[in-house]
Amino acid sequence: MEQNLDPSTKTLTKTLCAHLASAQFGDLPAKAVHEARRGVLDWIGCALAGSGHPTVSQLIAVLQEAGGKPQATVLGRNLKLGLLEAPLANGAMGHVLDYDDTHMGGVVLHTSSPVLAALFALAERTPVSGADLMLAYAVGFEAGVRTGRTAPGHHKGGWHLTGTLGSVAAGVAAGRLLGLDAQRLTYAMGIAATQAAGMQQNRGTMGKSFHAGKAAANGTLAALLAERGFDATQEIVEGEKGFARIYSDVAAPEALTADLGGAWLIESNGHKPYACGVVLHPLIDAVIAVRDAHAVDPAAVEEISLRVHPLVLSITGVREPSTGLQSKFSVAQSAAVALIDGTAGVAQYSDARAADPAVAALRRKVKPATDATLRRGEAHAAITAGGARYEAHIAHASGTADNPMSDAAIEAKFLANAVPVIGADRAKRASELVWALEKAIDARALIALLA
Amino acid sequence: MEQNLDPSTKTLTKTLCAHLASAQFGDLPAKAVHEARRGVLDWIGCALAGSGHPTVSQLIAVLQEAGGKPQATVLGRNLKLGLLEAPLANGAMGHVLDYDDTHMGGVVLHTSSPVLAALFALAERTPVSGADLMLAYAVGFEAGVRTGRTAPGHHKGGWHLTGTLGSVAAGVAAGRLLGLDAQRLTYAMGIAATQAAGMQQNRGTMGKSFHAGKAAANGTLAALLAERGFDATQEIVEGEKGFARIYSDVAAPEALTADLGGAWLIESNGHKPYACGVVLHPLIDAVIAVRDAHAVDPAAVEEISLRVHPLVLSITGVREPSTGLQSKFSVAQSAAVALIDGTAGVAQYSDARAADPAVAALRRKVKPATDATLRRGEAHAAITAGGARYEAHIAHASGTADNPMSDAAIEAKFLANAVPVIGADRAKRASELVWALEKAIDARALIALLA
Repeated sequence: MEQNLDPSTKTLTKTLCAHLASAQFGDLPAKAVHEARRGVLDWIGCALAGSGHPTVSQLIAVLQEAGGKPQATVLGRNLKLGLLEAPLANGAMGHVLDYDDTHMGGVVLHTSSPVLAALFALAERTPVSGADLMLAYAVGFEAGVRTGRTAPGHHKGGWHLTGTLGSVAAGVAAGRLLGLDAQRLTYAMGIAATQAAGMQQNRGTMGKSFHAGKAAANGTLAALLAERGFDATQEIVEGEKGFARIYSDVAAPEALTADLGGAWLIESNGHKPYACGVVLHPLIDAVIAVRDAHAVDPAAVEEISLRVHPLVLSITGVREPSTGLQSKFSVAQSAAVALIDGTAGVAQYSDARAADPAVAALRRKVKPATDATLRRGEAHAAITAGGARYEAHIAHASGTADNPMSDAAIEAKFLANAVPVIGADRAKRASELVWALEKAIDARALIALLA
Repeated sequence: MEQNLDPSTKTLTKTLCAHLASAQFGDLPAKAVHEARRGVLDWIGCALAGSGHPTVSQLIAVLQEAGGKPQATVLGRNLKLGLLEAPLANGAMGHVLDYDDTHMGGVVLHTSSPVLAALFALAERTPVSGADLMLAYAVGFEAGVRTGRTAPGHHKGGWHLTGTLGSVAAGVAAGRLLGLDAQRLTYAMGIAATQAAGMQQNRGTMGKSFHAGKAAANGTLAALLAERGFDATQEIVEGEKGFARIYSDVAAPEALTADLGGAWLIESNGHKPYACGVVLHPLIDAVIAVRDAHAVDPAAVEEISLRVHPLVLSITGVREPSTGLQSKFSVAQSAAVALIDGTAGVAQYSDARAADPAVAALRRKVKPATDATLRRGEAHAAITAGGARYEAHIAHASGTADNPMSDAAIEAKFLANAVPVIGADRAKRASELVWALEKAIDARALIALLA
């Protein structure tokens, strides 16, 4: 391999980074700005709701021991850690409940946990405006999702995209917040991507949310290094030994810059009404639709037949979850709690619900079948109970770009997540601030409310 | 994927970790103990020689800004950083000169920079004996090289093994030093491997040595998390979405435990007489052999014809290096300096030598050709000068397990590396301590000499 080490060379990666380094807040369409507001609010809520999770507490205990100067706020914990440690903690708490936003634009990426955890830490290093923060956030979506599109075999290959693409997204977003020029932003992307990791093998373990935190920390480190001129390849994505080829059996490097300057990818972000992997959402919608229409008695159910996208069983095929965490990877548990409770929030994925005999009895009646003709957001449920058969078909899962949560639903979800941790008053003030975040002179006003 | 989440299940990863968790210093054969001594001494020297490198200085500047409590010594810098930052700095400085040890046992892995950088930091957290340190070091080789063997397509796929396998090796070594039981060591391995990263695309940039430091930090973090019960998959290597399948187009998971309990892999470690990638060593040997036998005048050379293993050109094919770093990836530069100077040490890979007109003139006369019948440690040189033709064939490069550096050569290399940084007296005391490291009651006695 003859490395391309000449900084004057034009590469796809540099073209993308030049575009993102020169973008201004005023370039963002109104929809992008509004999705940035929704994204920040939803992520803050998810992070606060996850801030007391045992997985997060264990992680924070280690970071406190190894930890640095109190430079950056750990959300919901009345604690500051170093610039590289706070992103690790905040990224993990944002993802630990599997409740954070999901971008489905060619890849399935939970962008906000890595990106906002990185940006929040750096916003405490040097004051930045709300608009700066929102622009950097939107830049992170471009970098992460576009890189994902260059590697179409990436998810199938076994990677946890929130760890891998999350590192890239966080590094470029953080570099943008630091005001790096095109060359240094290219370096930030090269340093961030070369740390990209996270295996799906760790689904159902503490390792999964750790990936999101690690991505945030990787990205923060990459941006701080690039700021000082630490260099990297000019073509981390498209190079012969670059991301598109290493992380995927099929490479599509040209996707990195396709339609650059058109719609911003943050505009198609999605938010979760349910606290589990997004692949489960359409079938939960379908079960709830049957429940709402027919008031089915769970005790009378003979069978819950589901038709789902093939990915559903490959990702969430756990039959007998023994913990709340494992139940997030269980079609059977998700359908059972949806029918009994009519929702699938944080409470439905508790250890207690995983061990509940009534839920366990019902989940054994769930018969999922894959149907390759379905889209990812589509599912069909047929429930037989007392000799009757009830059906529902969902074309677009709630919370996706085609069937988005309303602003009111986002707000309600935020309050439900945040109020138990920071109280009603601070939650309300944080929400008001975020709905007008572009007017904030200093983003630390928001962060201070979340400590 | 039905995840295997049952801690009672027997998996290949757990079998390996159970073996490594129960191993005792007394189990190490004399050759393993001696190779541990040689490996520690050589690595310390390489790290000290690299401690003032501009790449390392930039990295340390960021770590000082973001850095933590002064918990662990940064070698050669009169500085302490946090438990996760010192390994990053020390791992990078160990690898930055491409002078550190190389294990060729089925993979090409620079084990010591990730592993010893992690172990040195943890040795300052809780006192450990020299024997404990050596055992953990040997354990790191087992974990790293064995994991590499499960993924035979790993290097060809574009990964920088010192980043990827280095994370695994460092995590398991660090976990062993902390005295983790089999289950927690399995978790440490799962957390370390899920952070494994580093792309060959960053060869010739600051990113490459960064990978080694990051691997050390990843491993340290993994062990500290596992110590507190942070969990991970039971089968990070052999799982359906585990390391062997994700990081390689061909998977050989059974290699993880093959011949477990036989020879220790540290016994076949190698050390570099030259400050560049190990693939270059046989051709440098060959050029020096011609030079030594025939006193060839570089100015009279018409052509330096080389026959080399195909990997040489794919890794080190840079024709016109413009920096010392790039010249480490240049067959042409390596052959040219070897003929002029009779060696290829740190001084030969300087920016000045890359820009030297006499070297540049000679490197343009280097004609490398690949020969798939050669082994990696083999090369042939034919030099024509003044109408005569001189040839040399090297069957086993110096510094490999088949043609190892002598203890005296390791000692001389160490002193050349260390004396300019810590002075002759401390270097001599460090060397004496390492040659009897298994007798040291507290490894901090060594680390204190290297500050």
